[in-house]
Amino acid sequence: MKKLKGNLLYGQSGGPTSVINASAYGIIKEAMENKDVIEDVLVMKHGINGALNEDFFFISQESEENIDLLKHTPGSAFGSVRYKMPHFKEDETDYVRLLYIFQKYNIRYFLYNGGNDSMDTCLKISQYMKYVDYEIRVIGIPKTIDNDLPYTDHTPGYGSAAKFIANTLMEISCDMLAYPKGKVTIVEIMGRHAGWLTAAAHLATSRGFGPDLIYLPEVPFSIEQFKRDVRRVYGEKQQCLIAVSEGLKNEDGMFISSSSALKDAFGHFQLGGVCTKLSQILNNEMRISSRSIELGTTQRAAAHLQSLTDVNEAIEVGRHGVKYALAGISEVMVVMERTSTPDNPYVIKYNKHPLNEIANYERTMPESMITPDGNGVTDEFLEYVLPLIKGENTPVYKDGIQCFTKLN
Amino acid sequence: MKKLKGNLLYGQSGGPTSVINASAYGIIKEAMENKDVIEDVLVMKHGINGALNEDFFFISQESEENIDLLKHTPGSAFGSVRYKMPHFKEDETDYVRLLYIFQKYNIRYFLYNGGNDSMDTCLKISQYMKYVDYEIRVIGIPKTIDNDLPYTDHTPGYGSAAKFIANTLMEISCDMLAYPKGKVTIVEIMGRHAGWLTAAAHLATSRGFGPDLIYLPEVPFSIEQFKRDVRRVYGEKQQCLIAVSEGLKNEDGMFISSSSALKDAFGHFQLGGVCTKLSQILNNEMRISSRSIELGTTQRAAAHLQSLTDVNEAIEVGRHGVKYALAGISEVMVVMERTSTPDNPYVIKYNKHPLNEIANYERTMPESMITPDGNGVTDEFLEYVLPLIKGENTPVYKDGIQCFTKLN
Repeated sequence: MKKLKGNLLYGQSGGPTSVINASAYGIIKEAMENKDVIEDVLVMKHGINGALNEDFFFISQESEENIDLLKHTPGSAFGSVRYKMPHFKEDETDYVRLLYIFQKYNIRYFLYNGGNDSMDTCLKISQYMKYVDYEIRVIGIPKTIDNDLPYTDHTPGYGSAAKFIANTLMEISCDMLAYPKGKVTIVEIMGRHAGWLTAAAHLATSRGFGPDLIYLPEVPFSIEQFKRDVRRVYGEKQQCLIAVSEGLKNEDGMFISSSSALKDAFGHFQLGGVCTKLSQILNNEMRISSRSIELGTTQRAAAHLQSLTDVNEAIEVGRHGVKYALAGISEVMVVMERTSTPDNPYVIKYNKHPLNEIANYERTMPESMITPDGNGVTDEFLEYVLPLIKGENTPVYKDGIQCFTKLN
Repeated sequence: MKKLKGNLLYGQSGGPTSVINASAYGIIKEAMENKDVIEDVLVMKHGINGALNEDFFFISQESEENIDLLKHTPGSAFGSVRYKMPHFKEDETDYVRLLYIFQKYNIRYFLYNGGNDSMDTCLKISQYMKYVDYEIRVIGIPKTIDNDLPYTDHTPGYGSAAKFIANTLMEISCDMLAYPKGKVTIVEIMGRHAGWLTAAAHLATSRGFGPDLIYLPEVPFSIEQFKRDVRRVYGEKQQCLIAVSEGLKNEDGMFISSSSALKDAFGHFQLGGVCTKLSQILNNEMRISSRSIELGTTQRAAAHLQSLTDVNEAIEVGRHGVKYALAGISEVMVVMERTSTPDNPYVIKYNKHPLNEIANYERTMPESMITPDGNGVTDEFLEYVLPLIKGENTPVYKDGIQCFTKLN
């Protein structure tokens, strides 16, 4: 095979994870080990916007320390974007501009790091470049704490977020146990359509300190069932810890977080996020004192509690993206397949899957991982998630505060 | 001096910190090294309630592993309580009962671990036991993430909470930087009367990723000034990260979190916690998209991010409590004094201070640590707080999840 010489263009898109920059590290390292083919790595500032605006970081100009710290830096170190590209048959403007940029910088490798929407962007760009006969290899690099991409055992970013949720819920549970008659505490966890991250709260319960009830977006949420569940647990324990997904929907498929999905007994709409609304209902209708915790973006940004397994896999996913591209493969997303060997129940094999089967498809939790009463998860889920949170990627601390990449 | 042989009674009171159990560890270890005098350590279940109910843990019956894990366990491992004892001249019931229990179990050392209210309990018990001529040595062991106890440079628990706040705000800031035009994010931090913990958010800013504005309970909160501050920062940066204390008060001294303290432009009272209320005002009155993060009890329970300095000091404070008691000292709280030597700018000397000057007194931040415009902190504060967060007390992980003490 003739070597396709040129530059590699990389970008980050969608919500950050605590290990998306570890994938960037893997891509950069693999590219630098193939300098005979890949001359430099350019990174778009704020994803595809950076390409359209000709706004790049040139990795050859960054320090080795900054590259190394990518393994420990949360957020999107190069900036992210939420931009849905139109299909080129509807509007060619962006694509004509991209072609000009690709030619100007001799971009022959395009690696884009994101979730479902980003895979859609990858696919559209690849299709256009084929259409205009510009030779380029386009690879999708998965990331999302939501763990909702199909054809991969899990996604980089999920393991670290799950580890953060497990350890944080365990700590919240310990704190609650201080008082004999406690409150109801409701913790809201990210995940608009899939409950993978909320389910990880059960890891804490499996160690004796964790939520009593878990509500997932896969199960239609019934406020009456919720009240019965809380009444039962509170009656037994005088306290109750609850993990809820931000994506809970009522029986009509309407998000509980939307103001018209949930009324109290007096017909008033509840305000606030899911946990605030449910907390108000417990306080007002059941006279049970409750409080809510919204962890917000800390869930996807907690670099200080990364799973080492997750970091290493994120790096490898990046490296494999470059390897596939160098081998002439294009229009695929890197995926992970879980295999077992007699010596090791958890072995990951890297592979690839066509982008057109991945873009815009969301993978939710299977029924077999959710308890029949819909307020907990099964051992099958525990076996699935446990290997993903193993190992600690010890942060780089200076005087008690983490060191992160600061790009030029 | 004649040795006072007997048992040591220990208890935890008030809100937990992530290192209160490290003080328990210090007390237990020091007591066990003085078995010729102290026969066993009894721990009250749920603080003074456990003494009144004759409900104890006997440390001689606990495993060494469980004792060791106290250094890593958040919450109050032995249970806590919020109970304000009446003075014995008003109501002697509790004191008569305590005297009976002390005699029954030959309690000669009473160490109580808590904040202002707990020191008040210590003092009252000591005064009563003197009054009835029962020989016992009573020592207060400080703890509080609020850092508001007087006559001590700082309190055990504060350093770890400050470290958690600094690192978490840094991560939230990194996450926000992903998008070019971001939101306003408001993070609510614990501290009803003192701003020490909220101020620690500035540690993140000092490293280049942190809040732009900090509002403390020491400064009367003006909603108009707040809006001007946000408008200025948002105009410059298109995003803004804000740390607010849960204890913010308006110019009339009323908590912003109380529903009648804050009205929007239409005269409607705002609902929710401080951060939710301020977020609503930005959304509704300034049309700036904002979100709020309520970290809740994670701030005082984050055992996975303990400051090693804090853990070691918490242990030492416990050990010194026992040492003072064995030396015949009573009715004092252990305090820490900061001294500097030519080789080391931060040296802690342990000392004691009479309980009657400590009980029910709250120490707030001095003016010199707050910027003149009231929305930030000064370098003097940074110098004060930096040594307190140094070093990591690496958690004990099993398969990615922390191990905590589970008592019999």
